[in-house]
Amino acid sequence: MIKAGIVGGTGYTGVELLRLLVAHKDVELSVITSRSEVGQAVSGLYPNLRGHIKINFSEPDFESLAQCDVVFFATPNGTAMKMAPQLLEAGCKIIDLAADFRLKDTGVWQQWYGMEHACPDILEEAVYGLPEINREAIKKARIIANPGCYPTAVNLGYIPLVENGLIDDMHLIADAKSGVSGAGRGATVSTLLCEATESVKAYGVDGHRHLPEIRQVLGSVAGHEVGLTFVPHLMPMIRGIEATLYGVLKVDVEDLRQIYLERYKGEPFVDVLPSGLAPETRSVKGSNMCRISIFRPQGGNTVVVSSVIDNLMKGAAGQAVHNMNLMFGLDEVTGINQVALLP
Amino acid sequence: MIKAGIVGGTGYTGVELLRLLVAHKDVELSVITSRSEVGQAVSGLYPNLRGHIKINFSEPDFESLAQCDVVFFATPNGTAMKMAPQLLEAGCKIIDLAADFRLKDTGVWQQWYGMEHACPDILEEAVYGLPEINREAIKKARIIANPGCYPTAVNLGYIPLVENGLIDDMHLIADAKSGVSGAGRGATVSTLLCEATESVKAYGVDGHRHLPEIRQVLGSVAGHEVGLTFVPHLMPMIRGIEATLYGVLKVDVEDLRQIYLERYKGEPFVDVLPSGLAPETRSVKGSNMCRISIFRPQGGNTVVVSSVIDNLMKGAAGQAVHNMNLMFGLDEVTGINQVALLP
Amino acid sequence: MIKAGIVGGTGYTGVELLRLLVAHKDVELSVITSRSEVGQAVSGLYPNLRGHIKINFSEPDFESLAQCDVVFFATPNGTAMKMAPQLLEAGCKIIDLAADFRLKDTGVWQQWYGMEHACPDILEEAVYGLPEINREAIKKARIIANPGCYPTAVNLGYIPLVENGLIDDMHLIADAKSGVSGAGRGATVSTLLCEATESVKAYGVDGHRHLPEIRQVLGSVAGHEVGLTFVPHLMPMIRGIEATLYGVLKVDVEDLRQIYLERYKGEPFVDVLPSGLAPETRSVKGSNMCRISIFRPQGGNTVVVSSVIDNLMKGAAGQAVHNMNLMFGLDEVTGINQVALLP
Amino acid sequence: MIKAGIVGGTGYTGVELLRLLVAHKDVELSVITSRSEVGQAVSGLYPNLRGHIKINFSEPDFESLAQCDVVFFATPNGTAMKMAPQLLEAGCKIIDLAADFRLKDTGVWQQWYGMEHACPDILEEAVYGLPEINREAIKKARIIANPGCYPTAVNLGYIPLVENGLIDDMHLIADAKSGVSGAGRGATVSTLLCEATESVKAYGVDGHRHLPEIRQVLGSVAGHEVGLTFVPHLMPMIRGIEATLYGVLKVDVEDLRQIYLERYKGEPFVDVLPSGLAPETRSVKGSNMCRISIFRPQGGNTVVVSSVIDNLMKGAAGQAVHNMNLMFGLDEVTGINQVALLP
Repeated sequence: MIKAGIVGGTGYTGVELLRLLVAHKDVELSVITSRSEVGQAVSGLYPNLRGHIKINFSEPDFESLAQCDVVFFATPNGTAMKMAPQLLEAGCKIIDLAADFRLKDTGVWQQWYGMEHACPDILEEAVYGLPEINREAIKKARIIANPGCYPTAVNLGYIPLVENGLIDDMHLIADAKSGVSGAGRGATVSTLLCEATESVKAYGVDGHRHLPEIRQVLGSVAGHEVGLTFVPHLMPMIRGIEATLYGVLKVDVEDLRQIYLERYKGEPFVDVLPSGLAPETRSVKGSNMCRISIFRPQGGNTVVVSSVIDNLMKGAAGQAVHNMNLMFGLDEVTGINQVALLP
Repeated sequence: MIKAGIVGGTGYTGVELLRLLVAHKDVELSVITSRSEVGQAVSGLYPNLRGHIKINFSEPDFESLAQCDVVFFATPNGTAMKMAPQLLEAGCKIIDLAADFRLKDTGVWQQWYGMEHACPDILEEAVYGLPEINREAIKKARIIANPGCYPTAVNLGYIPLVENGLIDDMHLIADAKSGVSGAGRGATVSTLLCEATESVKAYGVDGHRHLPEIRQVLGSVAGHEVGLTFVPHLMPMIRGIEATLYGVLKVDVEDLRQIYLERYKGEPFVDVLPSGLAPETRSVKGSNMCRISIFRPQGGNTVVVSSVIDNLMKGAAGQAVHNMNLMFGLDEVTGINQVALLP
Repeated sequence: MIKAGIVGGTGYTGVELLRLLVAHKDVELSVITSRSEVGQAVSGLYPNLRGHIKINFSEPDFESLAQCDVVFFATPNGTAMKMAPQLLEAGCKIIDLAADFRLKDTGVWQQWYGMEHACPDILEEAVYGLPEINREAIKKARIIANPGCYPTAVNLGYIPLVENGLIDDMHLIADAKSGVSGAGRGATVSTLLCEATESVKAYGVDGHRHLPEIRQVLGSVAGHEVGLTFVPHLMPMIRGIEATLYGVLKVDVEDLRQIYLERYKGEPFVDVLPSGLAPETRSVKGSNMCRISIFRPQGGNTVVVSSVIDNLMKGAAGQAVHNMNLMFGLDEVTGINQVALLP
Repeated sequence: MIKAGIVGGTGYTGVELLRLLVAHKDVELSVITSRSEVGQAVSGLYPNLRGHIKINFSEPDFESLAQCDVVFFATPNGTAMKMAPQLLEAGCKIIDLAADFRLKDTGVWQQWYGMEHACPDILEEAVYGLPEINREAIKKARIIANPGCYPTAVNLGYIPLVENGLIDDMHLIADAKSGVSGAGRGATVSTLLCEATESVKAYGVDGHRHLPEIRQVLGSVAGHEVGLTFVPHLMPMIRGIEATLYGVLKVDVEDLRQIYLERYKGEPFVDVLPSGLAPETRSVKGSNMCRISIFRPQGGNTVVVSSVIDNLMKGAAGQAVHNMNLMFGLDEVTGINQVALLP
């Protein structure tokens, strides 16, 4: 059994991680920390876990975390980078679900996150945990930067096109839509039911933190910097991201879908849909799957890709467990091959 | 492996049953029939099942169903009773998720369902599949009447009070609220998103088919007929039933909650909440749990019970699999102990 | 033109009042105060008002309010009672949308609201602003206690039965369901979209502040104290209250609906529905109407009434404007006879 | 008083038109036809109208319609073009809310709508009823093609850029999101609450009927054909369209927002938001306003415009009444300057 710890398990990413880990056959959850909820039963905060978990939230202390084989950080940005060096030293593996280790360039990180990076050397070592591009590196990693939710949906949708140089990658346009759970469980007016339901809006148009993360990944598969306009939107629902991606073809391609099928052949969590069918976010609700469709409207030279994930699963906790499975040599789908809840 | 068949797998009960059975370690799903979808891939109708199921919908024919160890009917009322005699004869076990075998009195059945019963002898044999009252009979049954969704929530909430003669059972009041999935997947104006979201209404106030079913169960645990006013309401959401139950105490009881704890001790799918906390339907979304709270407002003589279930799980498919597990001697929680999806 | 002021216009009751008053042909809105938003344009906080209102939020100061003919309080409980004496002295009329003047018994008020009442003499003078029982008194009042949302729905539903002594009023049961806007615009975790959508729950079962208010009104029309169990529920939607009311008939009545038709004859904001049809909350969304149906299931002796209102209109701002119209001798439907927004 | 008739008033466009017309001070609604509901009270089908309208649905017969000053068609495509010639002959003015008179090229119309056009000469005469580009022509028109919902949102967002030749109009990208009411009140599985809530999807990616309509308008303001990729999405809500529009600047412009302010100066139903603020669809719920924001992310050469409308108001019934006001010389905001319902 893998002994697992969670730092900061009170948000939506945390409770989703708990849902997966309490049912994972190879994991024993030994510690969950939360400064704000010390001593409270985890199932008191999350009644869906009643009967599935007995432990209480504890102080985030080094001693108990150091006993774990793997520590997940489901904390605000800036927390994991402070505790990572000591835990790695103690022999723990680390999976950070926040952004501390996602951007390789510390300058860019500081610009978008407003903090100086606490451990640039470990940042250099950290592996970006998108299995579809980094599977082998993940298997050998000590520390994983678990990808952001929007970047996962956008990158999986763009990779086959960008990797093969098929589109003009200086003018990419990603129009993404997310459920409200992506904004977290903090008490803010803008995410109240009465503010967010029965409404749609763009936000962060002038610049969202996931922009440099997407550009880093696509730039790496392209082999050069890419140009991207990324506009996220808030949807009146809990879970799910749909990213509609636009690109202008540079070369003529007979069967775009075939390129996706080949690129993702054997991937357990990427599903390329039949032609003509756009994916619904509900088809992945509670599941770790990313479903993708490719279109070429009216046979023109603009490609349209629609990519959907559950932001709390493939966009956060599910992908984190996928990374853990890879790091510990387990069958990679263990504990994350749930069928989506529909309806 | 248990060979299972589903008759009529295109509704919400059907797809939920599929979600459970494709992941059930002791079941092999061998046939799913649907007159309207013959030849279509199941995962074509339900994209959440892509990658989890390979078979197609077939004609409901006797030969292939007769090969099954168990046949689930997720059909409109009146279908199962026509096929049951022959299938039982062939050695199949049957679990009917519709209402054909729920009401023991054929006269009452005919009154509420508007059809003559096709096989009164089998009706007599059929066991009402509420494990919390009929576990031993279910284990030995050939044919199960899987309970209705409202009756499950209401009966589990009332049983400890009625069984012990604690309340005036001639004036029971059950005010129940259900998500729209209870109305099924048929294309009707009243269940369109634009008609049913952002609104609440009572319906069936003059008489709902689940009324005689609830009265039958409570009458049986009381040992005499009971009087019940049952008012269902439609809620603007997909899944979940909350039943608020009212009763006037006949005897003084010091600790009502203790009576519930004792009654449901050891029950894997009934959870009595801590005092003062009312259950939310989302705490059971996608799970087979029923969560119950008991109140005595201002210490008066009126008892208030709140009982929640997921209508598609404990109220339909989950309870059906629970019954199957019992009928085949499996660990009864196999395949239905999922943690609820929250948020 | 009536010069109107609003104290505390930043919550949902406030913005609804603004929606009505900016379009009211006899009202000039001259001041809106908010401690937290001083100097901000009202249309900056509420973009739906862009183009309809030019003024900014100001400090709640006596001088500017004293210039008004009428001052609405859309404040937390305990605010209006501190400013009321001085404003009445200055000749203003007052309509309090909070609870400060609703309960006639200061002891009961203190018990449920946890504060000592600041002006018991004015409390005595204040008129409970439910036009259907107090129209003439409202016309002459200087200060109005605008009714609570649940009490409005429940009382209008029960009044014809209780007033005429038709039911056992010692065992009334009111099961009420409300949209989330009733909880206000404060940033709390429990009213986040991800917590409150796709879920239903009872709350305040052990005692809700609207209980004594309902009992006061029904006691007054009955001529004696009544017994009431009141259970509110939170619904996954923005607006609307549905109250399902239960009562046991003491006398046989041939046509219950007729009694409602007579009681509410000529009332502009009470609509008794045709037999057999239960009202939907969406049929009053954004309107000041209360729609009511009466049932006697299976011809038994239990009466069931379903009553719906928009909690922000007939349950708050709409009724406040109704009261203002009456106090100033206007046609009472002025500015509040909007058709509900459907769908 | 203007005598108005509605043909086909049973859908969502119809009921919204009714909401506006019954409260319009210069209109007398004299006939509403519906083949399927002949004889039924309008307020029986739409309970929000109880107390506001007394008439019943009638057969669509020429005689009674010919008495009207104006006839609105809220019918399926292909109906208005059959009745228009005779009604015009009789002296009626016509406003068609369907698509019969939107596309000037009968070949294009036939290609997208699958029918031959019944009256090409009247098509030629018909004025496209977007007041922001055709106000003077509308005033003089006998017959109006009321614009589609998506085209209204997209065109108002693009016009200032395209009209002034500021962007590359051969590669326009419009990513639009609509509430479910846009799909109408027909009973279809895909618009059931359980299918459409808590989910987002693209649809019609290969070609949507609003594509040629948008291209026609933008082509006309550009003075040449434009290239457009248009991808609509279905949102889990009732009302509202948000269109996010992308374009690559051809010339450098110092203040894009200023260009919008000038273009829409004096327009009563276009609101250009302050810089940096993206519009929410709820800010126009139930109102006839279009709110627009302009962005230039990271100061690059890609412009992003977000445009929101209520699809049933500015996208249908509200704009139809606007056109009627113009045709009959009324103050153009009469009856359609409601404040949006928020929350």
